Amino acid sequence: MNWFVVSVVVSLLSFATAAWLYSWVNKQPSGTKRTQELGTLIRQGASVFLAREYRLLAVFVLIVSGAIILFLPEPIWHGDPMRNVMMAIAYIAGSVFSALAGKVGMAIATIANTKTATAAVENMEKSFMIGFRGGAVMGMAVVGASLLGVTGIVMLTGDVALTLGFSFGASSLALFAKAGGGIFTKTADIAADLVGKVELGIPEDDPRNPAVIADNVGDNVGDVAGMGADLFDSHVASLSAAVVLAVALDGGIGKFTQMVFCYAAAGLFSSIVGVLLANIDKGADPTKALNKLTNVTTAVFVGLTALATVIFDFNWRYWAASILGLGVGVIIGIATDYFTNDTRKPVQDVASASASGPAFTMISGMSYGFLSVFPALIGIAVSALGAFLLTNGIDPTTVTDALFGISMAAVGMLSIVGMIISNDAYGPIVDNARGLVEMADLGEEALRITDELDSAGNTVKAITKGFAISAAGLTVIALLGAFLSEVNAVLQARGMDLIAGFDIMNPLVFFGLIVGSAVPAVFSAMLMLGVNRNAERMVAEIHRQFDEIPGLKEGNPKAKPDYARCIDIATTGALKELIPAGLMAILVTLAVGLIGGIIAIGGFLAGNIVSGLLLALFMSNSGGLWDNAKKYVEAGNCGGKGSEAHKAAVVGDTVGDPFKDTAGPSINTQITVVSLVSSLAAGLFILFSIF
Amino acid sequence: MNWFVVSVVVSLLSFATAAWLYSWVNKQPSGTKRTQELGTLIRQGASVFLAREYRLLAVFVLIVSGAIILFLPEPIWHGDPMRNVMMAIAYIAGSVFSALAGKVGMAIATIANTKTATAAVENMEKSFMIGFRGGAVMGMAVVGASLLGVTGIVMLTGDVALTLGFSFGASSLALFAKAGGGIFTKTADIAADLVGKVELGIPEDDPRNPAVIADNVGDNVGDVAGMGADLFDSHVASLSAAVVLAVALDGGIGKFTQMVFCYAAAGLFSSIVGVLLANIDKGADPTKALNKLTNVTTAVFVGLTALATVIFDFNWRYWAASILGLGVGVIIGIATDYFTNDTRKPVQDVASASASGPAFTMISGMSYGFLSVFPALIGIAVSALGAFLLTNGIDPTTVTDALFGISMAAVGMLSIVGMIISNDAYGPIVDNARGLVEMADLGEEALRITDELDSAGNTVKAITKGFAISAAGLTVIALLGAFLSEVNAVLQARGMDLIAGFDIMNPLVFFGLIVGSAVPAVFSAMLMLGVNRNAERMVAEIHRQFDEIPGLKEGNPKAKPDYARCIDIATTGALKELIPAGLMAILVTLAVGLIGGIIAIGGFLAGNIVSGLLLALFMSNSGGLWDNAKKYVEAGNCGGKGSEAHKAAVVGDTVGDPFKDTAGPSINTQITVVSLVSSLAAGLFILFSIF
Repeated sequence: MNWFVVSVVVSLLSFATAAWLYSWVNKQPSGTKRTQELGTLIRQGASVFLAREYRLLAVFVLIVSGAIILFLPEPIWHGDPMRNVMMAIAYIAGSVFSALAGKVGMAIATIANTKTATAAVENMEKSFMIGFRGGAVMGMAVVGASLLGVTGIVMLTGDVALTLGFSFGASSLALFAKAGGGIFTKTADIAADLVGKVELGIPEDDPRNPAVIADNVGDNVGDVAGMGADLFDSHVASLSAAVVLAVALDGGIGKFTQMVFCYAAAGLFSSIVGVLLANIDKGADPTKALNKLTNVTTAVFVGLTALATVIFDFNWRYWAASILGLGVGVIIGIATDYFTNDTRKPVQDVASASASGPAFTMISGMSYGFLSVFPALIGIAVSALGAFLLTNGIDPTTVTDALFGISMAAVGMLSIVGMIISNDAYGPIVDNARGLVEMADLGEEALRITDELDSAGNTVKAITKGFAISAAGLTVIALLGAFLSEVNAVLQARGMDLIAGFDIMNPLVFFGLIVGSAVPAVFSAMLMLGVNRNAERMVAEIHRQFDEIPGLKEGNPKAKPDYARCIDIATTGALKELIPAGLMAILVTLAVGLIGGIIAIGGFLAGNIVSGLLLALFMSNSGGLWDNAKKYVEAGNCGGKGSEAHKAAVVGDTVGDPFKDTAGPSINTQITVVSLVSSLAAGLFILFSIF
Repeated sequence: MNWFVVSVVVSLLSFATAAWLYSWVNKQPSGTKRTQELGTLIRQGASVFLAREYRLLAVFVLIVSGAIILFLPEPIWHGDPMRNVMMAIAYIAGSVFSALAGKVGMAIATIANTKTATAAVENMEKSFMIGFRGGAVMGMAVVGASLLGVTGIVMLTGDVALTLGFSFGASSLALFAKAGGGIFTKTADIAADLVGKVELGIPEDDPRNPAVIADNVGDNVGDVAGMGADLFDSHVASLSAAVVLAVALDGGIGKFTQMVFCYAAAGLFSSIVGVLLANIDKGADPTKALNKLTNVTTAVFVGLTALATVIFDFNWRYWAASILGLGVGVIIGIATDYFTNDTRKPVQDVASASASGPAFTMISGMSYGFLSVFPALIGIAVSALGAFLLTNGIDPTTVTDALFGISMAAVGMLSIVGMIISNDAYGPIVDNARGLVEMADLGEEALRITDELDSAGNTVKAITKGFAISAAGLTVIALLGAFLSEVNAVLQARGMDLIAGFDIMNPLVFFGLIVGSAVPAVFSAMLMLGVNRNAERMVAEIHRQFDEIPGLKEGNPKAKPDYARCIDIATTGALKELIPAGLMAILVTLAVGLIGGIIAIGGFLAGNIVSGLLLALFMSNSGGLWDNAKKYVEAGNCGGKGSEAHKAAVVGDTVGDPFKDTAGPSINTQITVVSLVSSLAAGLFILFSIF
């Protein structure tokens, strides 16, 4: 069985599914003129942002491509110049694929939002299906592109190191897409809330608010395009790490490599099955409907891979490792849910602490956020250790077998990512739809329905976010293995002594460890300060409009706010703020590598992973917790809307916004980028480092 | 030259200095009847808390001593039972010394506060001297006890492993003293502010507030006794690590061991000189006066050790390592000052962001807090690496020489700790004095003077806190070296293979690394939730008193609040909340060791250090920043008192309180405890671990 061909076929199948879903969503009615007008504003705003962002990133990609041609994987005067060119091509391909997947996802999401809103006027079921299928287009496009890209490179060139270049392209784009989108969305969200809800006391999606369209655009550029790029990046990285290690084990392309593609194809196929089975009974709970699909996908994956392992005589221990990864991913999702679900103690505690003022919202929320890292970190630690122990000794001469086991656990955890993305992209679509229902005045019933769909989106999102961070964690551990394998390949080629590992007691390793641990903290601080600065600009603009446009505050229907100006501010600010943070992470990596060499980089990556996971989990979970605590109070608990507890909970939610939607999830990508830069620049560090 | 004897002499000299300072302070006038009454209330409250805390800890110490006799350093049925008994005695001695140092510090601080307040009625210079000399009693007592204890053990037994037991006693007491004191002080502070300043709008130290005495007691039990125990612990740990490594290098007690005591004695002697030179010109700036003393101490230490190195032919490279440590400590202090000084951008930015509401206070404060970890972590990384590189190769057969170099950097950094503690304890004394001036109505001029002294205390405190955390960081890195050395001693004694180090690519190490990184997060979360719970109880009590005691709210002089009841709530709550967090840290360490063995513990310690330093620096610095941002606004900037910015800045300050005074500095001690538990239980892990 040639699993390359199967992978290509399954990828094409997922594209076909995406195309069918796209045309189905597109055929649904677009609703009233007002709805369409507003939808067009959002769509245009999103397109403009994406176009400007991609133009900026194109420059970045070109510069990096030039650097790759000169220096990677080896300085051009040392190695084979053609290989450098190929690496640059792989890098460009990775970034283009990522951009395309983001573009497709945005395109459908900004169509699906109006149609979901329109359908909500009639019934919940139709509305749900449009929201879900809209999200699924993104899911199918992203995972199909990832699998096709990696398979294509390995099939066409046989040089697996190039997959790291592809992966680097994907992740450097994701870094900026996530950071830029995250800054955009939270700028708009915070500024809109601050002036609208807090100062003027007008509802969330009131069309008088000049930032309201920017806020809805933000949901798309941050949560759809950014999140898609993020998971594209994780999926590509997990496949690349697994393939690099498999080839090291196989001594060329062989059975282990085939197994990686078999499992990846099975994962995507399972997600296709899950997506196509999507359905909801009349009056059923949308959260349950979404969770059922995840369960179906998981079951199909487990069954298919077991079958393939029997038929094609793969090693059962690797099967067990990937199922372990998947299982732990699900458990971490459940643990995350505990900390962010409003039927549980943490959210309720934070809501009731809010009655004593915002300081207590903050202290208790952060405390639970810190507690919440424990189950996830233990889960990641146990799955990595378990996968290692399961697979160690398959090849008695090396630990590559067991590192490959860890990478298979990551592949297993990410196998259902097609479904995860579908669920995740459903969130911003129905969130947008809710906004449109309110802005276009589509009635109380439609508002109730979209509220219910939105709430399901939030619940599922908390779970998928925990899942995504953990998957990234396991992936970067696998990448650490791939890094070592790459380093030794370079050393061997140069006839130098191989490296066994990175001893913590070696001061260069410890030096790297400490510096690496500081990077995610600084990175997230830079992003949050960027959001702050940008939100301040936006608040000033909203104030200006309310002051200068006569009748706007009073709700005169002839007074039109200047939505475009707010979108422009968010866009310009986001693009200005996104570059320094990303660049800092890359430059510190190069500095550590050129000072302390490969040895320091080993420690640097470990420190980066450890502190990055800690901060990403802390920020995402406390952000989700505050969001839901606010909703819990708004549902009439602890004094309900307008109470002191509510005011405090709103403060918590505002702080949580950049935590959970800007800094937290961007850290993921930061870790992956740093890992890939290290792997790619290994040859450089060996040649030029001071120590 | 026998440096043991010199160390003992210098220790006794420091006790003599302490006694002289004590009697000098005691001779100063105690002021009005009202001042004395209030002072007595504070003193009694502090004594009651300390007595109850020590009684609880005595039980804990006894239980642990029992466990030590049974299991440490080797299970009693394996090794030499007498050695286990000696270890238990060393452990008890460490905890008793720590308790005594805390007790002495408290005793003088609660006398010095009334006298400082009384002197402030006349002039600033006298008031300053009483505050400083009161603090210096603590500084002299703590460092003298540390040096005497460690020297005594090595002199009397020659068994350096026992110093780790002594150190464990010191740090397990510090863990609880710091955590318990931290919970007490912030419970009282937050509850007093919340009801007093925020709800009722009465001034900070208004005697009507039932929690006001508890608040002043808190400054003593948290910032004096807790901080003293913390730095006692760091100083003992740095000496122990250095001595263990020195003996490993010397192959017994020899020249390296002598050098450790020479340098430690020189450090203490320099601090004595600095303390005795304390003076302030009329109208001079108290901050500058304090900083000048630190500079004098540093210069004397550098000169003395250089001289000793020439005369006694010590190795210059170790001298360079300790000066490097000291120099980096000073630089980190300056960097910390940048992030918390109200003449700099971060504090001013946070103050101006506060005008947009508390959410922006939080986001910007946390962002700067995350940024602030960078210079400190780089400093620690560079000093560890620098010390290693300076001293590697002195003994070509081992890296113990270079690990010893790192430990000498820690000894150097902590050499001036006598002065650091003196400066640090000055803070709560003048803070208390300020409260007494207000409560006892000693006049505007006295209030202005104590405000000025208090502000100097805060500035100096930010610097010393950054210094203390960094010193602890370097110390635990040295302890990691000591741990490896202990492990190999045990392995050698059993005829087993020695361990070279802890390879990050070993999945057991990685497992430990991730679990270790989670511990400080969970630990600090538990403490902060404890503060929250306890503050809620206290708020309820204050409300009750205002409701039930007639005339209290209106300020009727006959209405007496029940201060004792508030002190009791803070005490009971703190004791109840302090045990679980400390126990969690110890139990997770034992669990990881018994599951993954020595190898996993190596990773665990590294992960614990890295994430602990990150979180401790983040919390301490952002807490300090918020405190000063509030003061900056209160000084009339960004709208001044009563403005929106002020309200928001108060929220920031309240969140910062448990950050900087409970969780942040306790993490230090948590790391040290975990390191020492690991070293002591190494034999156990080797025997009984699963993997």
